[in-house]
Amino acid sequence: MNMSRTNRPKGARQRLVVIGGDAAGMSAASQARRLKGPGELEITAFERGHFTSYSACGIPYWVGGDVDDRDRLIARTPEEHRERGIDLRLRTEVTEIDVDGQRVRARDLASGAESWTPYDHLVIATGARPVRPDLPGVDAPGVHGVQTLDDGQALLDTLTTVEGRRAVVVGAGYIGVEMAEALLRRGFEVTVVNRSSQPMSTLDPDMGRLVREAMTGMGITMVDDAEVTKVLTGDDGRVRAVATEDGEYPADVVVLGIGVRPETTLAGAAGLPLGAHGGLLTDLAMRVHGHENIWAGGDCVEVLDLVSGRERHIALGTHANKHGQVIGTNIGGGYATFPGVVGTAVSKVCDLEIARTGLREKDAHRAGLQYVAVTIESTSRAGYYPGASPMTVKMLAERRTGRLLGVQIVGREGAGKRVDIAAVALTAGLTVEQVAHLDLGYAPPFSPVWDPVQVAARKAAVAVREAP
Amino acid sequence: MNMSRTNRPKGARQRLVVIGGDAAGMSAASQARRLKGPGELEITAFERGHFTSYSACGIPYWVGGDVDDRDRLIARTPEEHRERGIDLRLRTEVTEIDVDGQRVRARDLASGAESWTPYDHLVIATGARPVRPDLPGVDAPGVHGVQTLDDGQALLDTLTTVEGRRAVVVGAGYIGVEMAEALLRRGFEVTVVNRSSQPMSTLDPDMGRLVREAMTGMGITMVDDAEVTKVLTGDDGRVRAVATEDGEYPADVVVLGIGVRPETTLAGAAGLPLGAHGGLLTDLAMRVHGHENIWAGGDCVEVLDLVSGRERHIALGTHANKHGQVIGTNIGGGYATFPGVVGTAVSKVCDLEIARTGLREKDAHRAGLQYVAVTIESTSRAGYYPGASPMTVKMLAERRTGRLLGVQIVGREGAGKRVDIAAVALTAGLTVEQVAHLDLGYAPPFSPVWDPVQVAARKAAVAVREAP
Repeated sequence: MNMSRTNRPKGARQRLVVIGGDAAGMSAASQARRLKGPGELEITAFERGHFTSYSACGIPYWVGGDVDDRDRLIARTPEEHRERGIDLRLRTEVTEIDVDGQRVRARDLASGAESWTPYDHLVIATGARPVRPDLPGVDAPGVHGVQTLDDGQALLDTLTTVEGRRAVVVGAGYIGVEMAEALLRRGFEVTVVNRSSQPMSTLDPDMGRLVREAMTGMGITMVDDAEVTKVLTGDDGRVRAVATEDGEYPADVVVLGIGVRPETTLAGAAGLPLGAHGGLLTDLAMRVHGHENIWAGGDCVEVLDLVSGRERHIALGTHANKHGQVIGTNIGGGYATFPGVVGTAVSKVCDLEIARTGLREKDAHRAGLQYVAVTIESTSRAGYYPGASPMTVKMLAERRTGRLLGVQIVGREGAGKRVDIAAVALTAGLTVEQVAHLDLGYAPPFSPVWDPVQVAARKAAVAVREAP
Repeated sequence: MNMSRTNRPKGARQRLVVIGGDAAGMSAASQARRLKGPGELEITAFERGHFTSYSACGIPYWVGGDVDDRDRLIARTPEEHRERGIDLRLRTEVTEIDVDGQRVRARDLASGAESWTPYDHLVIATGARPVRPDLPGVDAPGVHGVQTLDDGQALLDTLTTVEGRRAVVVGAGYIGVEMAEALLRRGFEVTVVNRSSQPMSTLDPDMGRLVREAMTGMGITMVDDAEVTKVLTGDDGRVRAVATEDGEYPADVVVLGIGVRPETTLAGAAGLPLGAHGGLLTDLAMRVHGHENIWAGGDCVEVLDLVSGRERHIALGTHANKHGQVIGTNIGGGYATFPGVVGTAVSKVCDLEIARTGLREKDAHRAGLQYVAVTIESTSRAGYYPGASPMTVKMLAERRTGRLLGVQIVGREGAGKRVDIAAVALTAGLTVEQVAHLDLGYAPPFSPVWDPVQVAARKAAVAVREAP
């Protein structure tokens, strides 16, 4: 396949332009550089913020004080990238993609100067933007998102200077619950305002209820079924409370953790194909559909869910890194694909571990799958071994075939990463009967004699046999 | 298929005899009872010891004091089994299986009385016996095996009464290293005498070396390449030292952890088929080859290794429980199989976690497989997250196909159970490239952005591509 449509002479140095300097973009740039030296490939990367290659997933732990130094979240600094021959332009925002002209327009945010940069290959890695509801007062001082390092720094500045100790987190997805922990650790009284009836809507409600109970037990005030209608400000213009239809929740600081959407404004304006979730659509090589030399990865793309066969939007650093690796390999003349996801996610609130993979009940319905669902209680280690902690495992299996469809786990230490057993089994298309037979690591300090995931699988296998 | 060859009238109550009252035997009995009530199935179980359904794997933790009460290792007591209509005969040893006559002879160990019991189905679950080298002095007081609860109690009695504080462990397999930890915790100075050059010969020597270094760091004296020639006793007849060709190691207590062999004396005498490792050979339903109504499971059988395609002997409670479940289901009129193992094992010495699955280099050689092997260093959590601890992952992949062949992990907290990712991937026949793409649980407290197993898989995939 001819990888370039340009009319430049064969053998000429190719020009790679990357939009976005975090995980996907800089992984792509680095991997391409590994395969092609500066004599073959010129790489320019635009980043509108101050940082590159940082762990956005680590922000809650920096804000909470587990990680003491912001720089520890940075995997590779701008200087390190430049040393590898990547022309990195910080505080420079791409404002237009000219697809036909194979060039991007970028603005230096300091000077306001704009200029065009031509490309042979373009990588779009514009990430996601936090959902920032269009509410009165939402831009008031003291209201924070936590998407970027800059956001994290602004929040930390507020936390260390604000006098009051009341924090409201809006949203109870994984960002919301992680920020609830971070604020608790900073000594705040935390209220989580959640539009659903349970936190963690990535779980089924019955499993979300376990999270709710645990969070309440940690002293967090959970306000459910509540839509924020307004952010109220004081005489000083700062936030003083969050209002819902039913009440007001005093707040010295507000953290928006409502979730994120693909940041595809630029791509959309350029006429590139977006999916139902607003993310860029790519093939398995991470090439934007219909555009041989435009690639996209990370939080701005949709990914194939291997269990449901549908496209999803999942903002996770681990996918972004893999996308970048795939894109860089392909641009560098190698061959790689990103086959898709099964929807694995793990998070924690203090000592509560929460994990999920595959389909929830409503996902299965939506995909047209009939299923059985079972829930079991087990322990992280042999029951008699010190530190054995309870965990709840919910498992979905397809009716008739017994194929594993999804697993949700809520427990304490040792619960979360057990979801990997199910993630691999889902990828391989194993049945719950096969999962029950797996040869998993067993010793009393590590697991009961039947791993909790297998206890669930045994029960699910019985349910499949008994289902009409 | 007609499940019984007896000439008893149809519909008559069937008689199930179980030899061995631990995991496999009593799981089989319990599962059969679940499916067939006492009116349909009479169950008699013979156990020569004092206990049933206990966790032999838990003995090191009881001896070490992590588990304070022996009874916590007992999953189900004799009384509980009897309440479910199982005629359990403790302290009763089966001395002969009369295959043609479909009966077993058993001796009451207290009275010496012998009697025959007829069966329609026989379950052989005689377990394993520790290798007890035929050495002068090996039966001296103060020399202990740790195979049964009775053994554990005898050792504990010695540990709590002996005056000296020097312990020698013979053998450095998983029992040996677990007992080294237990003895350390009891305040003993521990010497491990090992005939190999590295501990944990279930690992490749390069990985065993890491275990050796860690154990030395814990204050354990490691004596390698040393064959015990004699147990030396004092004037009181008690053990006083262990002798090798090269030296003497003073010992107030000696623990034999050399490994186990299938206990198939009875089965062999009855002419039942034994494999190369001395274990009973069964089909996938756990029926002894050539004997429609004789079943066997647990530590006395050989199991199919799904990676090498060869039979192995693996003494592990998790397999024994699964075997029992399969046997009981089949005897109870259901249908179940035990498809085989991939050789997963996990153990620990103090805070060092050791795990393996699939083939070592020498196993791959022996199976006729050509492979690449890679080793990587990574961490259990994101590098910046508190408690991130280093781990070493070694991975073998088949030359050309890239199929995953084996994984070995040595690390600290969070290292061991990661082997499950590889165990499932081995079972599913995934390539290392597929492993590198797996959608595994990621968040900074749980994993780096590439799970250590995936870091190894990426490197292995490159090695496969680059291999000639």
